[in-house]
Amino acid sequence: MTPAPASATSASAADDRYARGLAALSLVTGTERPAVLDSVAEIAPDLARFTIEFGYGDVWSQPGLTPRQRQIGTIAALAALGNAAPQLRFHIAGALNVGCTRREIVETFIHATVYAGFPAALNALAAAREVFSARAESESDAAGSEPEPESAAVPATESTPAADRYARGIALLQEVDGPAGPGVVDSLADLAPDLGRFVIEYVFGDVYARTGLDLPTRELASVAMCTALGTAGPQLRVHLRAFLNVGGTREEIVALLTQLAGYAGFPAALNGVTAAREIFAEKDAGPDAAH
Amino acid sequence: MTPAPASATSASAADDRYARGLAALSLVTGTERPAVLDSVAEIAPDLARFTIEFGYGDVWSQPGLTPRQRQIGTIAALAALGNAAPQLRFHIAGALNVGCTRREIVETFIHATVYAGFPAALNALAAAREVFSARAESESDAAGSEPEPESAAVPATESTPAADRYARGIALLQEVDGPAGPGVVDSLADLAPDLGRFVIEYVFGDVYARTGLDLPTRELASVAMCTALGTAGPQLRVHLRAFLNVGGTREEIVALLTQLAGYAGFPAALNGVTAAREIFAEKDAGPDAAH
Amino acid sequence: MTPAPASATSASAADDRYARGLAALSLVTGTERPAVLDSVAEIAPDLARFTIEFGYGDVWSQPGLTPRQRQIGTIAALAALGNAAPQLRFHIAGALNVGCTRREIVETFIHATVYAGFPAALNALAAAREVFSARAESESDAAGSEPEPESAAVPATESTPAADRYARGIALLQEVDGPAGPGVVDSLADLAPDLGRFVIEYVFGDVYARTGLDLPTRELASVAMCTALGTAGPQLRVHLRAFLNVGGTREEIVALLTQLAGYAGFPAALNGVTAAREIFAEKDAGPDAAH
Repeated sequence: MTPAPASATSASAADDRYARGLAALSLVTGTERPAVLDSVAEIAPDLARFTIEFGYGDVWSQPGLTPRQRQIGTIAALAALGNAAPQLRFHIAGALNVGCTRREIVETFIHATVYAGFPAALNALAAAREVFSARAESESDAAGSEPEPESAAVPATESTPAADRYARGIALLQEVDGPAGPGVVDSLADLAPDLGRFVIEYVFGDVYARTGLDLPTRELASVAMCTALGTAGPQLRVHLRAFLNVGGTREEIVALLTQLAGYAGFPAALNGVTAAREIFAEKDAGPDAAH
Repeated sequence: MTPAPASATSASAADDRYARGLAALSLVTGTERPAVLDSVAEIAPDLARFTIEFGYGDVWSQPGLTPRQRQIGTIAALAALGNAAPQLRFHIAGALNVGCTRREIVETFIHATVYAGFPAALNALAAAREVFSARAESESDAAGSEPEPESAAVPATESTPAADRYARGIALLQEVDGPAGPGVVDSLADLAPDLGRFVIEYVFGDVYARTGLDLPTRELASVAMCTALGTAGPQLRVHLRAFLNVGGTREEIVALLTQLAGYAGFPAALNGVTAAREIFAEKDAGPDAAH
Repeated sequence: MTPAPASATSASAADDRYARGLAALSLVTGTERPAVLDSVAEIAPDLARFTIEFGYGDVWSQPGLTPRQRQIGTIAALAALGNAAPQLRFHIAGALNVGCTRREIVETFIHATVYAGFPAALNALAAAREVFSARAESESDAAGSEPEPESAAVPATESTPAADRYARGIALLQEVDGPAGPGVVDSLADLAPDLGRFVIEYVFGDVYARTGLDLPTRELASVAMCTALGTAGPQLRVHLRAFLNVGGTREEIVALLTQLAGYAGFPAALNGVTAAREIFAEKDAGPDAAH
């Protein structure tokens, strides 16, 4: 049973929100009548309704981000939080349902090693493996229902010579962060030079250099993870700038932060807006104020 | 086997703490001889003892909060942290044992959507469903042992017209946050107006407007969640003010923050006290210094 | 199948990193050919490779910390994060494999009650119990393979009179934090005196007073937990100072923070370096600049 709107007397506004939410949720679940909230509705029917009306009717249905961007942002945030495995699996399936590829999902989690650590990334990948396997089985039951006969395995990375990791990393760091990028790493030279080197070699030379996720989507994932964690204030600011540098828009940032209110809570979203306001003002005041 | 105090030579102070802790723990478990720490005691007897002496003998037994307030604060914090499912289930059962209703527990988790996001709230609700089901079974085994023949299902919300969500939200925002409340939302108007609208419509119009949890208890849960997360500094300050606005006391705040040392760690509690000191000083200096 | 380096054309630098990483990983797993990443390699071969090359070849193999220090720091961080149970179990086993004792592991988790709360500590202890039990079984299958016929049970604490908790706590607080230590607690006297008392009696009188983990290792665990949580800025600074006070070195701090990039993410590590830079500058400028 899908929960019905609470009140038969409620105005059409509520019906609209519920109907719009259900339509959005159907896109994510890939089914006409999503059953995912039925067990919630048994004990907290209003929470099931809020999830549909607010989460999908108000937020997910907003313009500003494509469904694929929303799902990448959501799985990035849930991977970083690391404490909501059922929802992570649900939204990995949702990402596939709105057109993300397995490769993009796996790349998002490889990207998560940087922001949330290897354990969080490995656990998210384990969730992806479960979802991919379940899907492979249901596909073999109903052959032809999946337009993308994609292998679960991601091709090994481009055989870029290992000796180039540092040079490749520096180039990408400048592309992503602008002229200020290497400065961040230079500031580590006195105290933790190896950590600075790892930022260049691993974060940029290994991870950012990968294909499979374009730079704007990488930065969208970075912003989503730093916002959800709530503990990465300086890095959130770096990546808000970087997202704009590689072609992202302010509208996408605001839509992403609003989306994250539902997944990481309103405080995380509101603190993200505070950071965004600073970066937007800095851009307006700076040499590239014409942005 | 319940762990015994470590040393036969310890002074009566330790015996008192242990006995007082065991009595408090018995209230939470609803059993005379709680067995919950037996498996801990097998490998770390001192940790079992510390849990009883410090967690229950020192902290839980303090004045300043009622047992129901303690349990609501604890389940709110554990729901927000999202990484301690066994303890969350234990303290949901404990909340029932000290007199909280199922409705209050469910409402606390609906409230958690705001501070920790929907995934954390849905997972806490799943934990509540398990505890309620287990209790329903043991009740049918021992009929009459439960004074509250309460349905697990929460009644659907009052059929307030959906069209009133904004107006209802604004009114509640002013009641809770005082005249400064709408200012917080106004500050989002330039950058993320939809997020500001969602704060009014969803947070206050939908969630705070619900019955089933009185406003002081809602704000106690808000303070517990923001303190435990440790990432919501501005919001913690807003809700410390709000808790005092709706009738909470400074003594309750201090007792709650002290309780949270055991559930979210001393750093979270100490950072909460720093925030509380600021808000108390602001109140002392402000127009309502007579509080 | 252990994942092979991605490219046959890659320079010997990559081969070195991979070989060095595999050797380090073998120390942690206690096996010649670690299979732990095989399931990762099925779907994300590059992530398996990065884990070995970066996590073990670059970071774990660095000088600056002993293998035992690395494993204590890692299990402390994972216990505090509380959201990576498979990795916590893996690194508990790894801690045993590099020579940490069961007692040290259990003490690290008792220590975690202070920084991450009792639920996180109890769940980490449950993970330890699983690892210890599995090891006990495999030992009985292959008798004599374990040089340390250690009981899983930790001896009950030294029978220090309970009446001395406060005095013992104050003395340890001064030893660890220097003359400034009691000042931190004094600052709570006006507002939350019981919380201040608990810091002295429980944190220092009960936990820090325990044998089984020497003070530098305790402070290493404190720094690891505060860094990984990312929400304990003031406390991270207190414990960076304390680690230096009890004999830790700046080199160890930098190596630990670098190690944590892999477990809690680069933002956590970079924010840790910012805090370390402050404390090192303070030491250089202060009366004990000769440190």
